[in-house]
Amino acid sequence: MRKEYLLAPGPTQVPPEVLLEMARPVFHHRTGEYRKLHEEVLAGLKAVFRTENDVFISSSSGTGAMEAAVANVLCPGDKALVVQGGKFGERWTELCEAFGAQPVVIEVEWGKAVDPEIIRKHLNDDPDIVAVYTTLSETSTGVANDLQSIGAIVKKNDAILVCDGISSVGAVPMETDAWGVDMLVVGSQKALMMPPGLAFVTVSPKAWARIDFCESTAYYFDLKRARKSMKTFDNPWTPAVTLMVGLRKALEILNERGIEQIWKDHTRLAQAARAAAKALGLELLADPPADCVTAIRLPKNVDGVELVKKLRTEHGITIAGGQAELKGTICRISHMGYAGDYDVIIAISALEMILDEMGCELELGAGVRAAEQVLKNDQGTSE
Amino acid sequence: MRKEYLLAPGPTQVPPEVLLEMARPVFHHRTGEYRKLHEEVLAGLKAVFRTENDVFISSSSGTGAMEAAVANVLCPGDKALVVQGGKFGERWTELCEAFGAQPVVIEVEWGKAVDPEIIRKHLNDDPDIVAVYTTLSETSTGVANDLQSIGAIVKKNDAILVCDGISSVGAVPMETDAWGVDMLVVGSQKALMMPPGLAFVTVSPKAWARIDFCESTAYYFDLKRARKSMKTFDNPWTPAVTLMVGLRKALEILNERGIEQIWKDHTRLAQAARAAAKALGLELLADPPADCVTAIRLPKNVDGVELVKKLRTEHGITIAGGQAELKGTICRISHMGYAGDYDVIIAISALEMILDEMGCELELGAGVRAAEQVLKNDQGTSE
Repeated sequence: MRKEYLLAPGPTQVPPEVLLEMARPVFHHRTGEYRKLHEEVLAGLKAVFRTENDVFISSSSGTGAMEAAVANVLCPGDKALVVQGGKFGERWTELCEAFGAQPVVIEVEWGKAVDPEIIRKHLNDDPDIVAVYTTLSETSTGVANDLQSIGAIVKKNDAILVCDGISSVGAVPMETDAWGVDMLVVGSQKALMMPPGLAFVTVSPKAWARIDFCESTAYYFDLKRARKSMKTFDNPWTPAVTLMVGLRKALEILNERGIEQIWKDHTRLAQAARAAAKALGLELLADPPADCVTAIRLPKNVDGVELVKKLRTEHGITIAGGQAELKGTICRISHMGYAGDYDVIIAISALEMILDEMGCELELGAGVRAAEQVLKNDQGTSE
Repeated sequence: MRKEYLLAPGPTQVPPEVLLEMARPVFHHRTGEYRKLHEEVLAGLKAVFRTENDVFISSSSGTGAMEAAVANVLCPGDKALVVQGGKFGERWTELCEAFGAQPVVIEVEWGKAVDPEIIRKHLNDDPDIVAVYTTLSETSTGVANDLQSIGAIVKKNDAILVCDGISSVGAVPMETDAWGVDMLVVGSQKALMMPPGLAFVTVSPKAWARIDFCESTAYYFDLKRARKSMKTFDNPWTPAVTLMVGLRKALEILNERGIEQIWKDHTRLAQAARAAAKALGLELLADPPADCVTAIRLPKNVDGVELVKKLRTEHGITIAGGQAELKGTICRISHMGYAGDYDVIIAISALEMILDEMGCELELGAGVRAAEQVLKNDQGTSE
């Protein structure tokens, strides 16, 4: 009977109409019906990603699409510049190593954004760098990187710009084409309001030139093969039909509201969460913060692993803790996708109660009050 | 309003209770709830696969799990023996080439099974062969290979045996451990009564020794990494939670009936379909045929592509045609998974009507009559 609330940065909540859409009978994927679905989904994704570039859908988690953006792009020995300021930056480094490339790592303090000028310096100093790998929002820290400035720098260079937008695209501004992001990687289970199981990668003409040059070992994630199939809106392999059907519905909902409005909606929720944290005397980890997830430093005497566990098992509230070096010291609240005002209220209220329960001195209700002050002053969202 | 019937060899029909199970709210995967789900799904899969070996679940199509069984196993230059008697045997060859291995191809006439003695001869003559890749049932031709005999031969050798059972496991007998299949690859969207999006691979101790020896470029499909996560029933990457929830329900249904009974159920349906084809004067392609799919040669004057298209667009019946060299000359009817007596009746009735429509001389009802004679003489299935 206990109600469960999913407020973690992925998987996120899925609207009931999307879940029910996926309960429709399965149909075959080598048919006009599927090709129409595929075409509609791609149009919907392009509107959200703000791109006219090719978009590919992979039946995999986001990491699979990240692999596609490495395995197709880097030949063994190739140099790639990697922005590493959290767990997902590290994943780019690991992927480069797995495929025999040479990652040149920019170590960024966890919780801080990369300085675009450092990227410019590396590209100027080392003409062998063929690609720059970064994240839009580092989900592990909640930081927003300045992709517009990074794009302006990389654009003038021969290197391509690859961005992990898995947790942020659909929540925070991403102008793929205008900013010059050559490959953008996105996952289904974050701001796109879908269950996990699909991932996406965009490919610009500049990235195609690189991919066509590179002799890769990619097979399941082979983009050249996918490009061939895509001419008829086919997939090289059997696609996850039910997830595709759900995605069409989710994109319909997102694009009806409009992506620019959705970015504003996320800003509003994130501002409320940040105001609440400050009102409770808690520090924010990320500088600057992304509006898709709010990472809050916990008081020193609080065991963050225990806090997350107690919230889940005793309160029915799932938020995320810290990963790797941040383990036990932060909590992370998602604002991605199918989230509204009262998701922020629930998360902050739960945080107030659990901190009180764990012996912290705070004024119960002070965080919620601060959140309400932000939310009431802004126009409401329709959901 | 028109009713649609999915009778193609994957994706196949999914029971409504499985579809509805997947409409439940999404939950987080780093929780006890998910780990319990994962553990239950693995136990259910092991019962169906008849194995005590490790089983890994990948969020991908079956081809992704095939890639795992190549990328983790073969180092560049390694020799692998490949049984190639259809489109899916060819996929093994392509995968070997993609990862820089040397496929030694046994060309088998499409529609015929491989002679296990040829495998023995290759292994005796060439001690450099490190793995044998084959299919249990070649979905493109409907042929059943004799995995028991092949297993007995490979078992005595240092090479490992890798079997594509994507379309057949859960429909036709597969004794993974007893027959010595070191790696078995299976997909969700065939006999397991699930939508596409999940794939499985089993790993025997002999296969692990090979994998541990091999330095691979696998990342998303890295089995060593997956083995580490599996110790706590975790996945390295975000799993497709909704599909996992559906799979638990599908496995519950399958294991309640019992896999040995399910094999018999498939035999019964396939026998009815084969009797019907013969009664209509049509020839069967496969020798010996697998009981998961029936491939029927069409009369010479019939365009098979047109036949499949007309059935789908005018009758609402989806069956499969021929692929590659068989294009236009055969049709394939599935008996996999959630299929019952009246699925055979529907398929045969549709075939009778479309052949009549396309100008073939045949006795309407003769195929259905022959199918009924098989079905009534055997004990009925419960579904």
